[in-house]
Amino acid sequence: MPTFKGYYETKNLDPFTLEKAYEALKYERETVGYYDLPSSSLSLCSEVKSSLLHKTVYFDTIAVVGIGGSSLGIKAIDRLLRPSTPHAKKIVYFENSDPISIEYESSRITFAKTLFVVISKSGGTVETLSIFKYLIAKFDIDLMNSEQIVVVSDEGSVLSQFADHYRLKRFVIPSTVGGRFSVLSAVGVIPLVLAGFNVEGVLDGAKNFADDFWARKEEHLLQKAAYYVTNAKVSPVNVLFSYSDTFEEFGKWVVQIWGESLGKRNIRGERVGLTPISLIGSVDQHSFLQLIIEGPLNKTVTFMHIEHSRYELKIPELSLPFLEKSDFVNGESFNTLINAQCQATMQSVLQSGVSVDEITWECIDESSVGKMIMYYELLTSAAGTLFEINTYDQPGVEHGKKILESYFLNK
Amino acid sequence: MPTFKGYYETKNLDPFTLEKAYEALKYERETVGYYDLPSSSLSLCSEVKSSLLHKTVYFDTIAVVGIGGSSLGIKAIDRLLRPSTPHAKKIVYFENSDPISIEYESSRITFAKTLFVVISKSGGTVETLSIFKYLIAKFDIDLMNSEQIVVVSDEGSVLSQFADHYRLKRFVIPSTVGGRFSVLSAVGVIPLVLAGFNVEGVLDGAKNFADDFWARKEEHLLQKAAYYVTNAKVSPVNVLFSYSDTFEEFGKWVVQIWGESLGKRNIRGERVGLTPISLIGSVDQHSFLQLIIEGPLNKTVTFMHIEHSRYELKIPELSLPFLEKSDFVNGESFNTLINAQCQATMQSVLQSGVSVDEITWECIDESSVGKMIMYYELLTSAAGTLFEINTYDQPGVEHGKKILESYFLNK
Repeated sequence: MPTFKGYYETKNLDPFTLEKAYEALKYERETVGYYDLPSSSLSLCSEVKSSLLHKTVYFDTIAVVGIGGSSLGIKAIDRLLRPSTPHAKKIVYFENSDPISIEYESSRITFAKTLFVVISKSGGTVETLSIFKYLIAKFDIDLMNSEQIVVVSDEGSVLSQFADHYRLKRFVIPSTVGGRFSVLSAVGVIPLVLAGFNVEGVLDGAKNFADDFWARKEEHLLQKAAYYVTNAKVSPVNVLFSYSDTFEEFGKWVVQIWGESLGKRNIRGERVGLTPISLIGSVDQHSFLQLIIEGPLNKTVTFMHIEHSRYELKIPELSLPFLEKSDFVNGESFNTLINAQCQATMQSVLQSGVSVDEITWECIDESSVGKMIMYYELLTSAAGTLFEINTYDQPGVEHGKKILESYFLNK
Repeated sequence: MPTFKGYYETKNLDPFTLEKAYEALKYERETVGYYDLPSSSLSLCSEVKSSLLHKTVYFDTIAVVGIGGSSLGIKAIDRLLRPSTPHAKKIVYFENSDPISIEYESSRITFAKTLFVVISKSGGTVETLSIFKYLIAKFDIDLMNSEQIVVVSDEGSVLSQFADHYRLKRFVIPSTVGGRFSVLSAVGVIPLVLAGFNVEGVLDGAKNFADDFWARKEEHLLQKAAYYVTNAKVSPVNVLFSYSDTFEEFGKWVVQIWGESLGKRNIRGERVGLTPISLIGSVDQHSFLQLIIEGPLNKTVTFMHIEHSRYELKIPELSLPFLEKSDFVNGESFNTLINAQCQATMQSVLQSGVSVDEITWECIDESSVGKMIMYYELLTSAAGTLFEINTYDQPGVEHGKKILESYFLNK
């Protein structure tokens, strides 16, 4: 199970602030839907397994057609759990309106062996629908009663009505669950269960962490949220430095939930927010670290690493002429090296005066993945309530969509 | 050829600042080596072609063993030019000490068909050497006179001495060229020429842009650098929003050159720097855009897009029941859609009061890639000189390396 350690000063935080955040979240819990997903999605897993899984055994590929909240969370879990789930079906993602990507992804699937999961909360996402139309045309898909298409959308959305019209299997995202908080709803459950991942284990980990949080056993979370919001003007940038390439998509998921939820006007109309950055160690030690250590002190850094890897790859006991200076790591595992790089970097960042905290995953398993998803969701909600914003909307991006539509209509 | 357009106010910039930056760069040019690479690397291309290429025709894979400045630039060019160079040999990258990645990458190469290019400027990079040892042991490589290994490093470095000891083919990075400015040196030239890319075209594009810059035909570059440095405290975050997935590695290369070069203590010991963020549209419109539009006004945004794509993929003229609202893009190409998304997003970001500029690539070709590499190198140098820092060192990261070594030696 991941453990948490903060190296910043929290004793000056107003205890009332923590209570305020906790009470606000408890109140929110009545109306905001994601809190309940670890429990309610269990029956969804069962339903998929009993009603759908046997029909999909002949597919070897799941094609997710979705963008943002409809793809980032799935990709994160897929990437993290794939090394321990080698027999999972391949998942390909159609998310960007970039023709190069669409051409590439659609050329590497075999239509007859592919199940398409079309995901859009609103049902009207232009990227998703345009790509879906492209795939229908390209593969000449016969929509009526198709067993190759599953739809995930809000109840009553145009996409849901479309699915019913063609008698397609469809699943509902609860109306109280926002897109970027939806990974543990049908959005993530359907493709991941169909691909063969142990989603119940993920839900279980999420539920355990949430239970502990509500029982006030995870107070560090409220402290971190309060520290971040209190210092938002001094440290407007929050860096997540993860030591394994398998965290790359998880980092992007965190960037979305943190940036899109917290970048808002508050109840007084003031612009608030925190800028998230996701980095990968040790690669970005050769890229971004110099800026953290000697650049402006406007960042916090979270170091995240895995204590035990299932890959016991060792650096050989090989001393090469002229290269002996690197022999100090001979015989160690690469996992020991990357963890030591994390610790050494953390120490030098700490010594440069930057606020640091550390998240240690004992190993990457379903339960830890669920726990960390719930951790970042709760952390975002706690920060949002302290910023006095609506954490769950995204009014800023609607304007661009209208400009886009008028651009084409006025052509 | 890419074109440039700034939407921010430059009339208040001190003309003397621009002169100062230009003169400083002209002076630097005497001692800083990257300025000369577009010319000097041409002979390197010829040398590789005449002396090495015929020996490598039987390899189908180039394995780059290198990290940071020794891999990011190669990946950027590889990704951008691959769609138009379909017959290029596969390049795989060994860059992180993450055991999962090393295991995965080394399991998908066929040893007999792979040429290893080991790249380290200093020659002592612990990740590179540890992975190199792992590959030697795994594939039982006979080092002496091996035609499967090419080394790129500083003249006289331990890695160069190692290469000479085993009589391996090796190439030199000019001592005046820093790692993150080295993509147009042997670092990028060797693997990319061997893979079959038209590197001369890239060098040519870089040279043309540099010539225009020195002839004062690209003053927008100095204006942008001056604007960024003058507003560094107000807008400490610089976002590059690129509209194509193929810019993903280019964005990481920009992040390194910008962040690591400018995050420094200046001549008065003050911490200066600008935080780079690389985003991909339209995906990150569903992720990060809300923060830009309604969050704190502490960012500048550069929108980068491709006018013409070689993929004329169209959104079908398909009107689906209940989904008619998305028909406004029917019959358009995906390239038109993604460009319109760029324009619509740029307009809404501009209207929210953020400083914006726009880089338009007519198409992705060798010449444009070279031009944009030189653009970001010159932009970084110009900003560095205005910050009054040493743009080319990275003192902040050395400390962590010492902690790492003592961690193992004291075990």
